[in-house]
Amino acid sequence: MTPPALSLTAPLAISLGDPAGIGPEVILGAWARLRSERRAPPSFVVGGPQLLRALAERLGIDCPIVPIADPAEAMFAAGAGLPVLAGLDGPSSPGHPAADGARLALASLQWGTKFALSGVATGLVTAPVSKGELAAVGWDYPGQTEFLADACGRPYRDAVMMLAGPSLRTVPLTVHVSLAEVPGLISAELITHKARIVAAGLRRDFRIPAPRLAIAALNPHAGEGGKFGDEEARIIAPAIAALQAEGIDAFGPVPGDALFTPRARAGYDAALCMYHDQALIPLKALEFDEGVNVTLGLPLIRTSPDHGTAFDIAGQGLADPGAMAAAIVMASEMAIARASTGA
Amino acid sequence: MTPPALSLTAPLAISLGDPAGIGPEVILGAWARLRSERRAPPSFVVGGPQLLRALAERLGIDCPIVPIADPAEAMFAAGAGLPVLAGLDGPSSPGHPAADGARLALASLQWGTKFALSGVATGLVTAPVSKGELAAVGWDYPGQTEFLADACGRPYRDAVMMLAGPSLRTVPLTVHVSLAEVPGLISAELITHKARIVAAGLRRDFRIPAPRLAIAALNPHAGEGGKFGDEEARIIAPAIAALQAEGIDAFGPVPGDALFTPRARAGYDAALCMYHDQALIPLKALEFDEGVNVTLGLPLIRTSPDHGTAFDIAGQGLADPGAMAAAIVMASEMAIARASTGA
Repeated sequence: MTPPALSLTAPLAISLGDPAGIGPEVILGAWARLRSERRAPPSFVVGGPQLLRALAERLGIDCPIVPIADPAEAMFAAGAGLPVLAGLDGPSSPGHPAADGARLALASLQWGTKFALSGVATGLVTAPVSKGELAAVGWDYPGQTEFLADACGRPYRDAVMMLAGPSLRTVPLTVHVSLAEVPGLISAELITHKARIVAAGLRRDFRIPAPRLAIAALNPHAGEGGKFGDEEARIIAPAIAALQAEGIDAFGPVPGDALFTPRARAGYDAALCMYHDQALIPLKALEFDEGVNVTLGLPLIRTSPDHGTAFDIAGQGLADPGAMAAAIVMASEMAIARASTGA
Repeated sequence: MTPPALSLTAPLAISLGDPAGIGPEVILGAWARLRSERRAPPSFVVGGPQLLRALAERLGIDCPIVPIADPAEAMFAAGAGLPVLAGLDGPSSPGHPAADGARLALASLQWGTKFALSGVATGLVTAPVSKGELAAVGWDYPGQTEFLADACGRPYRDAVMMLAGPSLRTVPLTVHVSLAEVPGLISAELITHKARIVAAGLRRDFRIPAPRLAIAALNPHAGEGGKFGDEEARIIAPAIAALQAEGIDAFGPVPGDALFTPRARAGYDAALCMYHDQALIPLKALEFDEGVNVTLGLPLIRTSPDHGTAFDIAGQGLADPGAMAAAIVMASEMAIARASTGA
């Protein structure tokens, strides 16, 4: 079945990120690359026209800036360059994090979120912010994902982080906790809750009608029949059975080291992993420069490049814009998928 | 500096593995492949000429069997086919594990070990055995590596498993234990003990004069300054400092997910990982069909393919001989390196 030929009826919003980090330059680099490949979707940056123009000149990036007064103008301005919402701006300050920059990053994120929630934008692509810098100006969230959950009126646990590259999608069930805490945090309820959100997200935003979910084991060799660890039999297998009973095509527990071979990867649409490194090691080993962080489970579409502010290399033209380009393309594909299913 | 042109002055011994598993067929497949590429080093299989001939016929593998009465004959028999030591044999029984097969596998391993320890063979390549089947005939070791340590009169902890592929070498510091036990098993002493053995092995057997060792963190983001886990500051960093103080080029702790990107991999010769999946996930994701298990720290050279007996697919021609071929080539290169340095 050929999907209906659809395109976006509203632009994507791209938040600026911390102006001291690599966010602004990867936005410029990504947009220049996508335009040269004729793949740039309708989109606009939420703030920073002067900042971005100065940075593009300094780094010699061929990305004309088109200031716009309203997001709707982005649908028509793109032929001339990268549309950037005016009225929100600051100096270009790569490598020098400061309170003013953090406030600009926050305002860009807040406005972008409003645009995406109201439908003025079809989705939100976020450039990296610094949690430390934002905390210093009074922001109180563990990360942008939790901020977005809150903005959507959802509990943090409903916002599920999926890492996606061209050949692999992984979901870490636990994230920023010590390895010692992981076994105590794994529960059948956590697995089924996140798996349902992932399955729904793959159906709705990735056009996968019957997503296949591989569920990782916690212990090496899946505990080898209980010889080293019983979480597989006690927690993970019952969760898989419960998912299967409700019609979700889940299987496992698959030993971690067996889960990411080329043959194994061909057998699923996403791998649910028990901890951060189990999900991130294969993703970064296989898809380093194209890893996209997708937030599933919220009403809005949100992607981001899978890297941080990298203050240490900002402004030097060293940052690879590949992940930002992939995040922009993925958000536009998700928006088209959602529009095509009317979901 | 051009290394001296050396070749092996004695053959490699290849143990047969469990005849119910894929060991015999990957030996045949690997040898046929290496011979067709003119890369087969002097080598012989320890036992099973009738078994191997029957299996080669059944699977249509072009690998003539040359029974030999003494390992020394292997140096001259190879032009005619694969040399196989006679006097030790059994029926070909793929897919049907049994006590007689386990006994044959054990005898092949024991003789191969003797040949390698005495210098009759330059090294030992082991095909997979079944711990369960061997336990049923009275063998009492966790695996072949521990058996070899014992045969060499060394404690188990001196036999260090390194997984090696064309673009990555990893060493798991803990192996077959539950994830919950891992944090309690990591110590500075364990890290320095294994790192010294790895550095010495890379110098002696891999011709790397000043090996660079990346030491992985235990926690995500290396604990992010103690926010989630303190093993990095408390255990791993002091171990790295101790290694540096004795002249070993060790660095880290490197967050697990940052350790296996293409750029990161270019910066070290081996990555020491804190637990099984941290080492095995990237290895199998990146080098699945060519992963070799190398035992460092023992007086003999030993490699094996990084897969098990796979009873379920044995005898069907489905097993990929790539890892066995890589194990044979790596053992011969290690033997030549050792001979060239006179070590």
